[in-house]
Amino acid sequence: MKKTVCVAVTGGAGQISYGLLFRIAAGEMLGTNQPIILHLLEIPSMMDALTGVRMELEDCAFPLVHDIVCTDSPQVAFRDCEYALLVGARPRGKGMERKDLLQANASIFSAHGKAMNEVAARNIRVLVVGNPANTNALIAQQSAPDIDPGAFTAMMRLDHNRALAQIAQHAQVPLTAIQRVSIWGNHSATQYPSISHALVGGTAASEVVDISWYRNEMIPTVQQRGAAIIQARGASSAASAANAAIDHMRDWVMGTPEGDWTSMGIPSNGSYGVREGVICSYPVHCADGRYTIVPDLDIDEFSRNKIDLSVQELFEERAAVESLL
Amino acid sequence: MKKTVCVAVTGGAGQISYGLLFRIAAGEMLGTNQPIILHLLEIPSMMDALTGVRMELEDCAFPLVHDIVCTDSPQVAFRDCEYALLVGARPRGKGMERKDLLQANASIFSAHGKAMNEVAARNIRVLVVGNPANTNALIAQQSAPDIDPGAFTAMMRLDHNRALAQIAQHAQVPLTAIQRVSIWGNHSATQYPSISHALVGGTAASEVVDISWYRNEMIPTVQQRGAAIIQARGASSAASAANAAIDHMRDWVMGTPEGDWTSMGIPSNGSYGVREGVICSYPVHCADGRYTIVPDLDIDEFSRNKIDLSVQELFEERAAVESLL
Repeated sequence: MKKTVCVAVTGGAGQISYGLLFRIAAGEMLGTNQPIILHLLEIPSMMDALTGVRMELEDCAFPLVHDIVCTDSPQVAFRDCEYALLVGARPRGKGMERKDLLQANASIFSAHGKAMNEVAARNIRVLVVGNPANTNALIAQQSAPDIDPGAFTAMMRLDHNRALAQIAQHAQVPLTAIQRVSIWGNHSATQYPSISHALVGGTAASEVVDISWYRNEMIPTVQQRGAAIIQARGASSAASAANAAIDHMRDWVMGTPEGDWTSMGIPSNGSYGVREGVICSYPVHCADGRYTIVPDLDIDEFSRNKIDLSVQELFEERAAVESLL
Repeated sequence: MKKTVCVAVTGGAGQISYGLLFRIAAGEMLGTNQPIILHLLEIPSMMDALTGVRMELEDCAFPLVHDIVCTDSPQVAFRDCEYALLVGARPRGKGMERKDLLQANASIFSAHGKAMNEVAARNIRVLVVGNPANTNALIAQQSAPDIDPGAFTAMMRLDHNRALAQIAQHAQVPLTAIQRVSIWGNHSATQYPSISHALVGGTAASEVVDISWYRNEMIPTVQQRGAAIIQARGASSAASAANAAIDHMRDWVMGTPEGDWTSMGIPSNGSYGVREGVICSYPVHCADGRYTIVPDLDIDEFSRNKIDLSVQELFEERAAVESLL
């Protein structure tokens, strides 16, 4: 067994956390040899519900869970944490403009960033799930100047997995036959799911996948999948989001498979023409607990336009919360 | 990789299944080398919601999931299945007497039993989660005369895990220090959580655990834990029930740990004075894919009375559905 680590999860009593916590506790995220202490954060009005979640976690008798801390204080929640999954966010209320939503969340993620800066482990890894995830991650990062800026990431893995699933269905191949799909940009309807470098059974996807299906069906399907799930289920995609959060963290820590990569929202650094200052999705390799942007990919004109459009949106979101940076 | 197996789950769009399916799909129940085809059954009015669950399962890109079949026909759902988790059940409606509830469920589980008898794999393992679980399992078993009667089990693992958690908290020891707890009888408020043969850190529990705490606090806490969760969460204990279902099936298939046992609702066979004819919880060892009742345990007078009380309830439930057997 490894040394016990603290894992913070915000929005602990929400639907995504309900699909997430039990899988983290079972060892799916950090491995079955990694004991954990769960730090669950909620707003005061949700503390009773959070107690219920804690009782259920206890009732699973998970051998890996050494303690569960429930709190409404970010300073308690993030203390000594090496992993933080920022799931809780303010949903869009009636009559709220996009700018209102960005700012309401900015104040939450600013507070969380400051608390992490004060009390979190210096090697913390942060995944922002709560939307608008990329800009929330940026706010948290900018509020934590004493933590490695690269520690702040946003979840693009649900989009990545959705793209894999669409291609597998279209090409009628097992999921494991598909490699090197990339999601670029913002976790929003402007995101760009790219198959430019993808392989299907080792063959270039462009030779296997119908290009008009890709452009006219697959891209919008992936972009709008969340709405389609709400339409069918009558509730948002909680369990698949939770699954993507586990995949994101696990691959970051344990590495991506040989010959493949994944997509993560990470600080832009000028690579592929995305200037510094936003949390942008790139294709990344993970190894030795670190991510690196996949280098030297050719970007065709179609891709260039799609990436630029989504990055432009990221900078617009940044501008809307600039006063808090 | 092993040969693909079909796993049926009923009530596929319900809350317990929502906590269960993604963990089965990730390999937590049958192992990460066991590909599966999921057969999800729902009632016609829930088929849209079930489609949403299916979309989310697809969006997880689980490598082990080779196909997902959604249906409202038990004959389709159970076809060739080697595992069936019967989660869906009729909840108690307003003004429904206990007998009405038993009979409403009896007709559901009778239909499922008949369908399994016709189309399921002959080596199927059945776990009934939907309440009243023990009597529902009995009905299914009696409706499937061509399947091994021992294939029908009822879930007591949530009670078992709850008992472990209570003892660990009381004795302030890790969960892994506790062994040989037993749940006897019915999955209801009459169930008997026994520590007569339990070990805490290798020492007899009777020497570690305060006996008045055990009798006056632990037993009622375990018996009434479900209601306490509803009180706190405002919703029933779905994720911990899902977790217990996974534990039950995994241990049945993979075996219980050396020196320990678990609790399962299985057909009574006269052991420990419980005559044939009900699905009763016993302490069991699992090995080579089979369960066996733990033999030769001393039953003291306190335990005898508690077991008899719960078994009496099982026979009363049986009497209420006798016309369907």
